[in-house]
Amino acid sequence: MAHIAVQEGLPGITGLLEFRLDSAKPIRELTQTLLRGESTLTEAERELIATYVSFLNECVFCTTAHAATTNLLYGSDEIVESVKWNLVQAPISEKMRMLLIIAGKVQKGGRTVSDEDIAKVKELGATDIEIHDTVLIAALFCLYNRYVDGLASFTPADPSFYKALAERLVTRGYVRPEGGYTKATYPIEVK
Amino acid sequence: MAHIAVQEGLPGITGLLEFRLDSAKPIRELTQTLLRGESTLTEAERELIATYVSFLNECVFCTTAHAATTNLLYGSDEIVESVKWNLVQAPISEKMRMLLIIAGKVQKGGRTVSDEDIAKVKELGATDIEIHDTVLIAALFCLYNRYVDGLASFTPADPSFYKALAERLVTRGYVRPEGGYTKATYPIEVK
Repeated sequence: MAHIAVQEGLPGITGLLEFRLDSAKPIRELTQTLLRGESTLTEAERELIATYVSFLNECVFCTTAHAATTNLLYGSDEIVESVKWNLVQAPISEKMRMLLIIAGKVQKGGRTVSDEDIAKVKELGATDIEIHDTVLIAALFCLYNRYVDGLASFTPADPSFYKALAERLVTRGYVRPEGGYTKATYPIEVK
Repeated sequence: MAHIAVQEGLPGITGLLEFRLDSAKPIRELTQTLLRGESTLTEAERELIATYVSFLNECVFCTTAHAATTNLLYGSDEIVESVKWNLVQAPISEKMRMLLIIAGKVQKGGRTVSDEDIAKVKELGATDIEIHDTVLIAALFCLYNRYVDGLASFTPADPSFYKALAERLVTRGYVRPEGGYTKATYPIEVK
């Protein structure tokens, strides 16, 4: 049970965002801009950053949700699994590997990102806006992970929930549907 | 020097927010809603949460800026100094002390907030929305602190800069001024 009285039947971040709509609106807008707006990073790459940071923060809800979304975008779970457990050898570009290393440092604390990290990622072709967005996506998921777990929102165990969520995030993004979310949105029982 | 080419002459978070305006807009809006919107927590109390979390994250820019703002709102630096160095004996209400303990746990990671913490703060009179807002303010400053330090934005040393910034945050809040910020906004030299 969540620490506060969220609407019955809404798991994870959804219950929290529906709890206070005026703070939820800019959170959704920021996420939509960073993860679905114009970018030289693909949606899959940006979801991968979100997944990796959520994994490092041990946020089961966000990790599972964004892993499912990333897998759907890549058409395979190979990249997420290798980034999580063996980043050094994951089958991604060297630029993307270094951006993920920087995201991982941001997760630990902003001061751990060094001039050398930045010089290296720029040598590998990263632009200022890609570095900016990587740091801000990592910071945003440090917010999300703490929001979700700090209020103990319900984390479904059923994989079909995350499959449905990922499909919505791929096709509709982070925009709130008209009328919002209700218990009927989800085909699972939420405690 | 910041890790990315922010506009010359803009320190701390300001240079980053001016670097990408479409992501800055919802960040400003979220902050204005949480720290200046209607609440049963005073503006001073909400700035105190922001200061304490920034202090725990060792973000010098955010800690100094929000400490100056909190001090201006309280009319003294006694509360910020005692919260930073001796939270157990700080001259604040027991409810506020427990909300700060929860904010400190959120800084470490959302999973550290326990059912007992929540039961205790509710016994002390905290409402669901106060708990929600405390957790979300703490999570938001985990974002800010990582954004500011992860991109190594310039941290002024001159106390008069923070005094001027605090006055603006108290009188105008987090809304972007028309025309934005330029080098002329700040009476300091920014490297």
